[in-house]
Amino acid sequence: MRGISRRDFLSAVGMAGGAGTMFATMGALGLAPTAMGTPNFQPPQPSDFRLTGRAAAKVVVLGGGIAGLTTAYELGKAGYDCTVLEARDIAGGRNFTVRGGTRQTDLDGHTQVGRFSDGQYMNAGPARIAQWMVTLDYCRELGVPIEPFANQNANALLYNDGMAEPVRFRTAKADVYGYVGELLSKATNQGALDDRLTADDKERLLAFLSNWGGLQPDRSYTGSPRRGFSVDPGAADQAGTPLGPPPALSEVFASGVGLYFSFEFEYDFAVQMFQPVGGMDRIPAALVRAIGADRVRTGSVVTGITNRDDGVSVTYTRNGRPQRIDADYCVSAMPPHLTARIPHNLGANVQSALAAFTADPVGKIGIEHRSRWWEAEHRIYGGITRTDLDIVQIWYPSNGFHGDRGVLIGYYNTGPSAIAYGQLTPREREARAVAQGVKIHGERYRTELASSFSVAWHRTPYLEGGWAIKYGSPEYTLLNQPQGRVYFAGDWLTYLVSWQAGAFDSARRVVTELHERVLKS
Amino acid sequence: MRGISRRDFLSAVGMAGGAGTMFATMGALGLAPTAMGTPNFQPPQPSDFRLTGRAAAKVVVLGGGIAGLTTAYELGKAGYDCTVLEARDIAGGRNFTVRGGTRQTDLDGHTQVGRFSDGQYMNAGPARIAQWMVTLDYCRELGVPIEPFANQNANALLYNDGMAEPVRFRTAKADVYGYVGELLSKATNQGALDDRLTADDKERLLAFLSNWGGLQPDRSYTGSPRRGFSVDPGAADQAGTPLGPPPALSEVFASGVGLYFSFEFEYDFAVQMFQPVGGMDRIPAALVRAIGADRVRTGSVVTGITNRDDGVSVTYTRNGRPQRIDADYCVSAMPPHLTARIPHNLGANVQSALAAFTADPVGKIGIEHRSRWWEAEHRIYGGITRTDLDIVQIWYPSNGFHGDRGVLIGYYNTGPSAIAYGQLTPREREARAVAQGVKIHGERYRTELASSFSVAWHRTPYLEGGWAIKYGSPEYTLLNQPQGRVYFAGDWLTYLVSWQAGAFDSARRVVTELHERVLKS
Repeated sequence: MRGISRRDFLSAVGMAGGAGTMFATMGALGLAPTAMGTPNFQPPQPSDFRLTGRAAAKVVVLGGGIAGLTTAYELGKAGYDCTVLEARDIAGGRNFTVRGGTRQTDLDGHTQVGRFSDGQYMNAGPARIAQWMVTLDYCRELGVPIEPFANQNANALLYNDGMAEPVRFRTAKADVYGYVGELLSKATNQGALDDRLTADDKERLLAFLSNWGGLQPDRSYTGSPRRGFSVDPGAADQAGTPLGPPPALSEVFASGVGLYFSFEFEYDFAVQMFQPVGGMDRIPAALVRAIGADRVRTGSVVTGITNRDDGVSVTYTRNGRPQRIDADYCVSAMPPHLTARIPHNLGANVQSALAAFTADPVGKIGIEHRSRWWEAEHRIYGGITRTDLDIVQIWYPSNGFHGDRGVLIGYYNTGPSAIAYGQLTPREREARAVAQGVKIHGERYRTELASSFSVAWHRTPYLEGGWAIKYGSPEYTLLNQPQGRVYFAGDWLTYLVSWQAGAFDSARRVVTELHERVLKS
Repeated sequence: MRGISRRDFLSAVGMAGGAGTMFATMGALGLAPTAMGTPNFQPPQPSDFRLTGRAAAKVVVLGGGIAGLTTAYELGKAGYDCTVLEARDIAGGRNFTVRGGTRQTDLDGHTQVGRFSDGQYMNAGPARIAQWMVTLDYCRELGVPIEPFANQNANALLYNDGMAEPVRFRTAKADVYGYVGELLSKATNQGALDDRLTADDKERLLAFLSNWGGLQPDRSYTGSPRRGFSVDPGAADQAGTPLGPPPALSEVFASGVGLYFSFEFEYDFAVQMFQPVGGMDRIPAALVRAIGADRVRTGSVVTGITNRDDGVSVTYTRNGRPQRIDADYCVSAMPPHLTARIPHNLGANVQSALAAFTADPVGKIGIEHRSRWWEAEHRIYGGITRTDLDIVQIWYPSNGFHGDRGVLIGYYNTGPSAIAYGQLTPREREARAVAQGVKIHGERYRTELASSFSVAWHRTPYLEGGWAIKYGSPEYTLLNQPQGRVYFAGDWLTYLVSWQAGAFDSARRVVTELHERVLKS
């Protein structure tokens, strides 16, 4: 996320986003090949050293999330001697895919072991990739196959507490757009906007509103086949029975369903989105293979960072034994608020800047069901149901269509809801999420349950939070500069906080700066 | 398509649909499990005959498209002795997937041989399946894997002749919705709608419009990050440079881009749609396997149908040799206007009813490119670009993402445009389609071209048209009834004309009626 407030960001994850912010910059329509996608980035090349006679430097990378792995991967292209220290027993950081057998113990001592069936998984952290994001370029380069992620589905549901029953996105959209079309047609025809609209404008606007709103010839909205059908069109005399009539205008706007629509237009979330085939952790797995698994030391907990004029020393423990590594440079790609707890000699300004970052609570649960009733009975193939309940949303899987089983995301929440679920045991979280889901989908949501796995990121060791937003702040600016021979990297140092693309971009920037320095040294 | 006029249907394929039609029927919100999806259909069972001591009847099916194959498939479940006569050398009818080596000669003597690379293909007929359609149930039952079809993409383009350059859907939508939000906010605040809106309505409507339109605090529209960025958000000080400012309100409505939006709300076209993995012809291939390939006689051209009190005789030629088959019943699943040319004894009413159907011209071209520049350079992964040029649309492939090559649909048109392209040689069609595509995508569209394959359905032997719409007419009603021992089936006998789902539904209806009759006989 970038250029929008933290409040807007949180509401984008939950409710639809707030009002857009004005950026009155000049620009074309953005269709030139260079205008979209990856910033111009030149990876370091082996020839960079061969041609200059210099030796590739030794770099220690702290943290084996996407930013750390990408740093080692890109520097490795030029022959840098990189070592990645990762505290957890697996690389990837928040890029974490839960399968059968996945084991995790949280800071409250709850141990979960994934019981998902073969082939079933849950992306507990990042789960979707926008077309413009550099993440896709890494998938291509690393040979990680991708498939569409259904972030939008007209058949998915909207449910606000107190509604008699959920309504499909398609139905809600037909009604809201129908009434908006009717109202604006009326105002236009009455001359209420004559100071803003020419006669040509009016004619074109009315034509648009009729088409887009599904209006009657008299420009009223009385329903439309876009709402859906109670009996589908079919053979012979089965012309189809459209749902109807629509609720009254007051009801439609009182329900608040329209507030969910803008999510689909946001730059980060608009269709078509993507996911790696088989789980998001295919990305860190491919990075580790490219780096060389021997260069990624899992189970390594950093205990000290000492910057010197001629290099950096990092102390850590591995399997309980103290270790030390010396390098020419260090890239710290750990969460800032955790780095703040590690003794270092980078000075009080750096320390207070690191400590100024606070990570947000984020929770997610994956619930495997014994059948894909949402497909067979409700014709919902992928997509997201939105609600004002504390689960915020239900995701239907974008893979394994027509299979025997599937994993729903039963909640993905932030703020107080994430804290509330995080305070429960995994079993209690499941029960609470299922009780909410039953309000939307009925008892099927409970009776088909096979198993679940929940993650409270703020209670997860060595991460302790979902994301940390301070872009544009003095602390952000400071830590985006090297401190002696120590660089910082991570999505928290970008305007793409919470996206893997941010981690990739931050690593690319650090790699570029570090490499230029090495070539000049 | 059903319940909307032919004009609306054609415009839905081309331009966005017209005004919705009112169906003021009572109904719930349509979320009960039975309310959506497949009509209640019970396939014939082997026990139906075992329990009654009857013999399963012999049925000859004319036409090996989806309706014919489904008839044989469903009747075969109960042990009927079915034979399918198909004139072409492959079953499937308009469900036709072109690959390397596919050969077709049209009625004008043009022979094309597909030169697509391994793994590349073009669905020349049906290419997308809505979630609610029974087609998906057959994919599940037959074990045909499915994957998402990207029918909507915010990064795809809109281009009307005369525009300086194409505009992305996301940009056009931000601007149209922004100005609509501004205008309706203004009218609402001025009291122009006070006779229609309560104070509560107004407050809720204004909140919706601000959110949905991306409006400023003063409720004006001045652009929004939803339009896209000329420089994407990224690391450190790269906050992103949003595209802007938007064109003036008059320009936006004069461009006509808003008329493309309603397509995405139509019941048949809203996300998420699907396609079989590997090509649409996986469906007829699976049907043929289930029926038994020996029961599907390709190269069989029907020459006569004789209905008798005790059975039906069908004459046909195979490999130039006259043949005859006798059966208890016949199901004619050929296009009606072609059936009208075959001698039969079903009477003048049937003959004139068959002849009353006329099939629409439809054209499509698949163009393989040597690289997927639309992904790498324009970040368009799947989806459809819309235009008022005679190509109507360009489809980007929904499969093979990040691969070396890909097949674009370079036109998919109906009416005069389909006729105009159909009158050209395949090479001329390619040249014309490419010249139009260059207007949208530049010379890349020409220089990366590897090969193409075009289909003019109205000039294709044994099909001679895209679809035939007469639902609700006396002829439609007549032919939906058995004529002696002869039944008719096909999408043209449903309110789902042009959809495979119509062919499936029609076959299921005929199978049900025929089986009931057999059980009572």
